[in-house]
Amino acid sequence: MSVPLATTDLTTALAAVLPGGTVQTDPDVLAAHSCDHASTCPAGVPACLVRPRTTEEVSAVLRYAYEHRIPVVPQGARTGLSGGANAVDGAILLSLERMTAILGIDEDNQIATVEPGVVNAEFSRAVARRGLFYPPDPSSWEMSTLGGNVATNAGGLCCVKYGVTADWIRGLEVVLADGRVLRTGRDTAKGVAGYDLTRLFTGSEGTLGVVTKIVTALRPAAEAPRTAIAFFGDLGSACATVTDVMTGGLRPSLLELIDPVGLAEVSRERDYGFPPGTSTVLIAQSDSVAEAEGVLGGFTTAVRRHGGEALVADDPEEGKLFLAARRSVGLVLEKRGALLSDDVCVPRTRLRELVAGVGEIGDRLGVRIACTGHAGDGNMHPTIVFDAADPDEKRRAEEAFEAVMALGLRLGGTITGEHGVGLLKRGWLERELGPVGLDAHRWIKTAFDPRSILNPGKVLARF
Amino acid sequence: MSVPLATTDLTTALAAVLPGGTVQTDPDVLAAHSCDHASTCPAGVPACLVRPRTTEEVSAVLRYAYEHRIPVVPQGARTGLSGGANAVDGAILLSLERMTAILGIDEDNQIATVEPGVVNAEFSRAVARRGLFYPPDPSSWEMSTLGGNVATNAGGLCCVKYGVTADWIRGLEVVLADGRVLRTGRDTAKGVAGYDLTRLFTGSEGTLGVVTKIVTALRPAAEAPRTAIAFFGDLGSACATVTDVMTGGLRPSLLELIDPVGLAEVSRERDYGFPPGTSTVLIAQSDSVAEAEGVLGGFTTAVRRHGGEALVADDPEEGKLFLAARRSVGLVLEKRGALLSDDVCVPRTRLRELVAGVGEIGDRLGVRIACTGHAGDGNMHPTIVFDAADPDEKRRAEEAFEAVMALGLRLGGTITGEHGVGLLKRGWLERELGPVGLDAHRWIKTAFDPRSILNPGKVLARF
Repeated sequence: MSVPLATTDLTTALAAVLPGGTVQTDPDVLAAHSCDHASTCPAGVPACLVRPRTTEEVSAVLRYAYEHRIPVVPQGARTGLSGGANAVDGAILLSLERMTAILGIDEDNQIATVEPGVVNAEFSRAVARRGLFYPPDPSSWEMSTLGGNVATNAGGLCCVKYGVTADWIRGLEVVLADGRVLRTGRDTAKGVAGYDLTRLFTGSEGTLGVVTKIVTALRPAAEAPRTAIAFFGDLGSACATVTDVMTGGLRPSLLELIDPVGLAEVSRERDYGFPPGTSTVLIAQSDSVAEAEGVLGGFTTAVRRHGGEALVADDPEEGKLFLAARRSVGLVLEKRGALLSDDVCVPRTRLRELVAGVGEIGDRLGVRIACTGHAGDGNMHPTIVFDAADPDEKRRAEEAFEAVMALGLRLGGTITGEHGVGLLKRGWLERELGPVGLDAHRWIKTAFDPRSILNPGKVLARF
Repeated sequence: MSVPLATTDLTTALAAVLPGGTVQTDPDVLAAHSCDHASTCPAGVPACLVRPRTTEEVSAVLRYAYEHRIPVVPQGARTGLSGGANAVDGAILLSLERMTAILGIDEDNQIATVEPGVVNAEFSRAVARRGLFYPPDPSSWEMSTLGGNVATNAGGLCCVKYGVTADWIRGLEVVLADGRVLRTGRDTAKGVAGYDLTRLFTGSEGTLGVVTKIVTALRPAAEAPRTAIAFFGDLGSACATVTDVMTGGLRPSLLELIDPVGLAEVSRERDYGFPPGTSTVLIAQSDSVAEAEGVLGGFTTAVRRHGGEALVADDPEEGKLFLAARRSVGLVLEKRGALLSDDVCVPRTRLRELVAGVGEIGDRLGVRIACTGHAGDGNMHPTIVFDAADPDEKRRAEEAFEAVMALGLRLGGTITGEHGVGLLKRGWLERELGPVGLDAHRWIKTAFDPRSILNPGKVLARF
């Protein structure tokens, strides 16, 4: 495969300002770096892959791209689910995967400074060795990078108690479109000097700048979690229990739901010993010794009030087994067919309507939809399982995917609780924001990226 | 006093599109509305005061102002401390004080929707009657409005456990410079659809839009707080205790420090029964029955380790007395002279250097500076007491004020932890942000306020 002349110029120019081995053009390498985990999103053909090791190198790449109006697609581990890291035609893929230094862990001020390529799990383990805790735990945490987590404002299982990634970011170093380096935020616990640029960049999916350093907040290590599980004969009772638990002021560190479709699938793979007649499962944890009795006791009471059966794990291993069932849903579904995984979030009281509505959509369109997720936050992952080789089923799956988002909006919710917009939900974002909101987004995008080189076409359509 | 012709035109035009009684031009009324509580900041002469009752009326005012390029200064209760609400020459003062409806309290989803003129204390009491809790508690909470709290991203005593105003805002309705109405955020617990406009507006001090509706998060009512107080012979030991307490993972709901200057002044007013030799006091609270023993026990241990003496209040009244000493510092100082109140925030470990450095500044310049504040967050309020009638002392007080901010920045902190920039710290903001940060701010300001009509000259100098 020959590389077009323009691309040769570009890579020659970049190679001239970057250390050897930073720029790659091997088509196989490029192809391997062209997609994230959003299976249905299109990817373009990039010009090259650049893997800088320093802020200065990132800055050099952006200066060149800005001058020559070349699109730049920032990438972490490409574990995203919305196509946000997918290649754009002719783009420089700017991978931060070599910027993997944990620059400092300040135990006394409970902050850390890290480079964006650090994998979440490695960072979490590093701070744990110092008796500290970085809560954000997206399902991808063993693979995904902190830079990617910041770009997507990643969520996870523990959000119900600890919030999302943005809640743990104190400041950022960002290379702007023109290559200049911006510092946002501060190392202090509080601060109101100027606009909140840290939050503006967090969750902006690489469309406003490239994050090259991250200051995170930390907290003291949580205690070993205690786990309870609840079994219900129907989905509605489980949803009503969730509302009761959260409204009652309990602070579980995790509150997950496995719906009938997901439960049937995981039970086919392994016998978890669920009681006969169980259709829906809730799993709750508390990671505070002082609170655990209250949280799990309150959970058990709420479960029984709604006709369910509750069980508190005797030991951590049993707790882990319960959680393993929840964690395995995605993997098990992947064996059944192609997946379209959604991410709607609704006010907690609408959870029951959401899962019921998802069921109706599946029935109406003749596709199977599992609906598990972070019930305590009202953030569910309706996952449509379909045969990609069957064009009609694929069409119905896509129709169901749209219908689920429409349902989420109708219930006062959002099209994405934690996965982001990327390419996948760009059209739907316009519906959620409305014309004035869309204009406000365009103003910001234009202000920070006047030449439209930063991950163009992601989040917002080109305009 | 005659009103210039241009002003007559303006008020006539506004009166034509607004209900009777909405527009005022009485010079005494205007003068009374021209300043907030920042005594040293200049105020211009406004054209009129407009007090709309609805979003539509706010929108009508802004449409007119946009078309005719008239500056608009949004105002709440004008309890701010940085001149952010001060009049600008020829401006429309846009007071939100008549928009006082609590539009809804959703107990099950633990959110509320309110208009910006609702006073913090009234809202807090209204949600308390429903068993709920809105934590942000700036010292001005009995007077300040939620709109003003959002505009300044107000802090308070409970931030050390519950965070600042921004942490409790889910979404906003904002009237943009051209009069269009934007909805930001969402009612859900999580959501990553698009840029975080809610955070962008929160703390933007009326320079990007006018907030007309606020969706707050709520939590279940806290339990009655238990209080402990600690007495130290020196300031350094108290600061070291603060670091120990916070690093140890305790979650006090309040952790305040009264320094030797502040303590001497409050003790002159009233005998609080502090032990002889006490120079510095720390006050800690826990508002969780499950945690109180651990928090106050850990506090007591840390106090003794640093040579202090600790006392846990026997009953709530005794606890309130301790806190009354802290709360009275500002009022007592006001009796002693004019005040310049600062608001630096430093990483917690630098607290000792901050208070020591403030003492040195006071000694060097021959002015008295109390240094009390929210020690648990590293956010202190060095308050310079001076004789406004003595030009030389006034000059030294102003020099001390600048020196305190320089010290805060040198210690890795910020010029403002919770009071905001307004007019008072505009020049210092440029120092804190640096040239690239300042540019990023200007881009945003220009994008949202291309005609520079929204609170012009606040936060950012006109450019």
